[in-house]
Amino acid sequence: MQLAALKHRTESEDCFVISPHHVRIRFHSAKNDVAKVVVHYTDNYLDTKTDKKADLKLLGHGQVSDHWGVTLKAPYRRLKYTFEVIGKDDSHVIVGDRGISSFNSQNLNADSSYFKLPYLHTIDMTTVPQWVKQTVWYQIFPERFANGDTYNDPQGTKKWQPSDHPGREDYYGGDLQGIIDHLDYLQELGVTGLYLCPIFKASSNHKYDTIDYLEIDPAFGDKQLFAELVEQAHKRGMRVMLDAVFNHLGSQSLQWQDVVKNGAKSKFADWFHINQFPVNPNQTGQKAMPNYDTFAFEPSMPKLNTANPAVQDFLLEIATYWVKYFDIDAWRLDVANEVDHHFWRRFHAALTAIKPDFYIVGEIWHSARPWLNGDEFTAVMNYPYTLQIEEHFFKKTKTAQALVAALTDQLMLYRDSTNQAMMNMLDSHDTARILTLAQGDQELALQALTFMFMQTGSPCIYYGTEMGMTGGNDPDCRKPMDWSKKNSAVWQQVQQLIAFRKKYADTLGQGEISLTVTATGLIKVVRTKDVKITAYFNTTTKDVALTGQAILQQNFANGLLKPKGIAIEVE
Amino acid sequence: MQLAALKHRTESEDCFVISPHHVRIRFHSAKNDVAKVVVHYTDNYLDTKTDKKADLKLLGHGQVSDHWGVTLKAPYRRLKYTFEVIGKDDSHVIVGDRGISSFNSQNLNADSSYFKLPYLHTIDMTTVPQWVKQTVWYQIFPERFANGDTYNDPQGTKKWQPSDHPGREDYYGGDLQGIIDHLDYLQELGVTGLYLCPIFKASSNHKYDTIDYLEIDPAFGDKQLFAELVEQAHKRGMRVMLDAVFNHLGSQSLQWQDVVKNGAKSKFADWFHINQFPVNPNQTGQKAMPNYDTFAFEPSMPKLNTANPAVQDFLLEIATYWVKYFDIDAWRLDVANEVDHHFWRRFHAALTAIKPDFYIVGEIWHSARPWLNGDEFTAVMNYPYTLQIEEHFFKKTKTAQALVAALTDQLMLYRDSTNQAMMNMLDSHDTARILTLAQGDQELALQALTFMFMQTGSPCIYYGTEMGMTGGNDPDCRKPMDWSKKNSAVWQQVQQLIAFRKKYADTLGQGEISLTVTATGLIKVVRTKDVKITAYFNTTTKDVALTGQAILQQNFANGLLKPKGIAIEVE
Repeated sequence: MQLAALKHRTESEDCFVISPHHVRIRFHSAKNDVAKVVVHYTDNYLDTKTDKKADLKLLGHGQVSDHWGVTLKAPYRRLKYTFEVIGKDDSHVIVGDRGISSFNSQNLNADSSYFKLPYLHTIDMTTVPQWVKQTVWYQIFPERFANGDTYNDPQGTKKWQPSDHPGREDYYGGDLQGIIDHLDYLQELGVTGLYLCPIFKASSNHKYDTIDYLEIDPAFGDKQLFAELVEQAHKRGMRVMLDAVFNHLGSQSLQWQDVVKNGAKSKFADWFHINQFPVNPNQTGQKAMPNYDTFAFEPSMPKLNTANPAVQDFLLEIATYWVKYFDIDAWRLDVANEVDHHFWRRFHAALTAIKPDFYIVGEIWHSARPWLNGDEFTAVMNYPYTLQIEEHFFKKTKTAQALVAALTDQLMLYRDSTNQAMMNMLDSHDTARILTLAQGDQELALQALTFMFMQTGSPCIYYGTEMGMTGGNDPDCRKPMDWSKKNSAVWQQVQQLIAFRKKYADTLGQGEISLTVTATGLIKVVRTKDVKITAYFNTTTKDVALTGQAILQQNFANGLLKPKGIAIEVE
Repeated sequence: MQLAALKHRTESEDCFVISPHHVRIRFHSAKNDVAKVVVHYTDNYLDTKTDKKADLKLLGHGQVSDHWGVTLKAPYRRLKYTFEVIGKDDSHVIVGDRGISSFNSQNLNADSSYFKLPYLHTIDMTTVPQWVKQTVWYQIFPERFANGDTYNDPQGTKKWQPSDHPGREDYYGGDLQGIIDHLDYLQELGVTGLYLCPIFKASSNHKYDTIDYLEIDPAFGDKQLFAELVEQAHKRGMRVMLDAVFNHLGSQSLQWQDVVKNGAKSKFADWFHINQFPVNPNQTGQKAMPNYDTFAFEPSMPKLNTANPAVQDFLLEIATYWVKYFDIDAWRLDVANEVDHHFWRRFHAALTAIKPDFYIVGEIWHSARPWLNGDEFTAVMNYPYTLQIEEHFFKKTKTAQALVAALTDQLMLYRDSTNQAMMNMLDSHDTARILTLAQGDQELALQALTFMFMQTGSPCIYYGTEMGMTGGNDPDCRKPMDWSKKNSAVWQQVQQLIAFRKKYADTLGQGEISLTVTATGLIKVVRTKDVKITAYFNTTTKDVALTGQAILQQNFANGLLKPKGIAIEVE
């Protein structure tokens, strides 16, 4: 047995409280190396003679590891536990708090063999809003969704031409009124959460270079209009998520301009990370580096010093303002990984104090364990998960086996509740559109989209996907919405997919997941809770025989699942 | 190569910021399985073409793993990095954020191969007080150290007889005046930190059943006397640590008595974890369980609900009171693991706001990673480390090789700074004394004590160890201090050991550590910083040849290190 591969970490994604008396436990071993894992457990203050035993279930095979899990009950809210591991080579060991020992009764009774969960505190428990697990999101890039009010169009606004390839500086006049005008449309499509890219006053068309977080950009509308948007969305059962950048300010902001003008004497001098005065903000394209910390190396985006309590208060006032007075339900946080953890803990506490089921989503492209322990973000934009889906379905750089292993590993990075709240998207304003990634193959795009909808995590559709829109990398993925394709075949298939996800929200939102590849080469996703949903995806180039009745399908007929085929059964 | 054994975890003890521009990185592999680990790294916003490379150093062999480490510089306070690992079987892989891949230039340039440290935030950095690393602690059980004032002796106080075997309910009259009277003694011994077991008003001789945290127990003295104790200790360069129980109250406390009397209507009803009213506190020895959560199953110690802000405020007022008005330097926290993390974060913030170099030590007997990330405790009482020393030196249940491996593994549980602040003790008021564990063999006891003094972490001597006192498990380890043995051979050897630790405080406190067993069977501890200290311990039953000059020694002469021998060289 590969002893160095036996892994368990207390009070982490491997050991987490799920109710005042229940704990979820995970264990990891080398792939196909271990026959059985048994946990022995009892109360911390009881003798090991009172130990109960439970077999861990093999949750799945990862790339190089196997993952095991079980839920344990702790009647007195305390737990000590140790693992008995039996290798496929018949070796037999105990894995405990102070290392590995031979399996025998002396070692099994040794206190040092036991991991301890001293008390099951609900205040330390990672919880996520129930509504998120049932939500299907729709991401809107406001400048390009719909122009509902031509009076607020910026100078030089171009004609609404969905076939355009927008430039970096182009404006098309999209605004909040355009969104309000299409809420009925969105309701018909079936989405239940709106994720709006930034709407605050800023210089650019993408609005990520915030000038004032407390003002709606005048090209988009005003606060009254935004209040109406939220109210109308809520009336239709849709939640509203706003997007903000708390990592840096735009260089046109009041605070940064004061620093540029007054240097070390500015009352905002401690608001940034300034290495030397005076600051040298005009270095774009030059060799000299900014002498202050920035987003990337961008002089126009000075990084905020979020360790400064004045900055914290400023940002928290903003964050809570839109919740208290406009009733938004969620924040999506841009460049969230570069802001300090202390700040995010205050942020989480402040927001959930106002709205206990508030949803906080960080933009983090890499694995995000440090932020997802229940007191910072609820979830992140789950790129590390979905990018692997694309590597298999679109880029063909990852085999079905490798995809299934990678996704299984990814699910072990976080607690179950966190996985259930993850924001899963295949594309966004920051990436090429799926139809373009699929080289125009709509069946393939829909197959990948459907695969994502079967996963644990809250799915998000990028505006226009339902219209079969194309677009390369930013800014090409930000074309004006093509309103002409409503009720097209694609549109109907997306609508059907959303309806399916909502109909089986309980199982798809919170059910167990198993990802495998069948002997015939199909990817098989099984989700289990009240019902059992089995989804097959043919990502090979050949027809594959498949029996059974599908209630959602594509390229499936006469017992054959053809390439790009989907067959979903519900029992 | 055992791929499932290759481990690295971002933003943890495997990746921690040590200065605004420096990060310490660790990596783990199966024991003797890997030939070389190289880290490739650059700024997050720079192309991987700018990658620098650094070899990781093999830090030591653990039980089943090898541990590797290196310090990296991040000029712009951001870091992305990936590991190139070469197996002893010549296999060659990349270990990255999304798993393991073959070593080739395409994978080495893939963004998914890189772990990310988005920004080196000093506010999130784990820091420990510099003074702790240089401190030698002395633990006092106040009722048994010295009786300086017979007027405050409890009724029935027994004669001060060091050979007594104290019962659970005995009193000997020790008090604060007794400590003050012996500060000169402690200074002569050389200790620089006093750790006092509880001194607050309580019913028992051990005072862990607090009645009032804001009063000194009248049998010990009063606040004026305590203020004098701190002042006199500080004058002698000694820090003062108090001990408190924030997990539960004593049943005689005002708050619990109110609950007993008024039930659900008590204004303190939410201060505890009560499962049913009325509470049933009189169940000692009976079969019925208390219907409220307690420490262990002890009805007289009702557990506090530290998720209640009123309880938090109450406890924080106490915690800060003794710092603000009496200038104490440290808290030792009893049953610290059973209190919630949210509370400890507030606790840490409140204490360090008053005294930035305040020291917080939790009582945790198992591995304590969840509490030691810089925002809860500075350190814990390092029993998981020191108990293994005893298993080898005293109980002979662990070989030298196994000890060295276990300690090497233990050092990987925490960040370096945390290890340096750990409170290392071989015995305490909760355990048998080392001389008793050594079955009366003073040479053996001193050998183990010296071994502990060579380790990373702040050493602590239990009162009376320097007098060669014996004592079995609690309450036998709490005998009245034997003042007759001052200047005995043992006393002088302890004094010399303390002086050595202080003379080389920089190297022993913050130097690198390497633990190995020589071919001749000696345990070898090497500490390196400004000087190199090499300590050899003969824990075999045979004489072992050893060349060199020792500046601290036991049983070492004529090139032979005899059993129980110690030889310490300094270069």
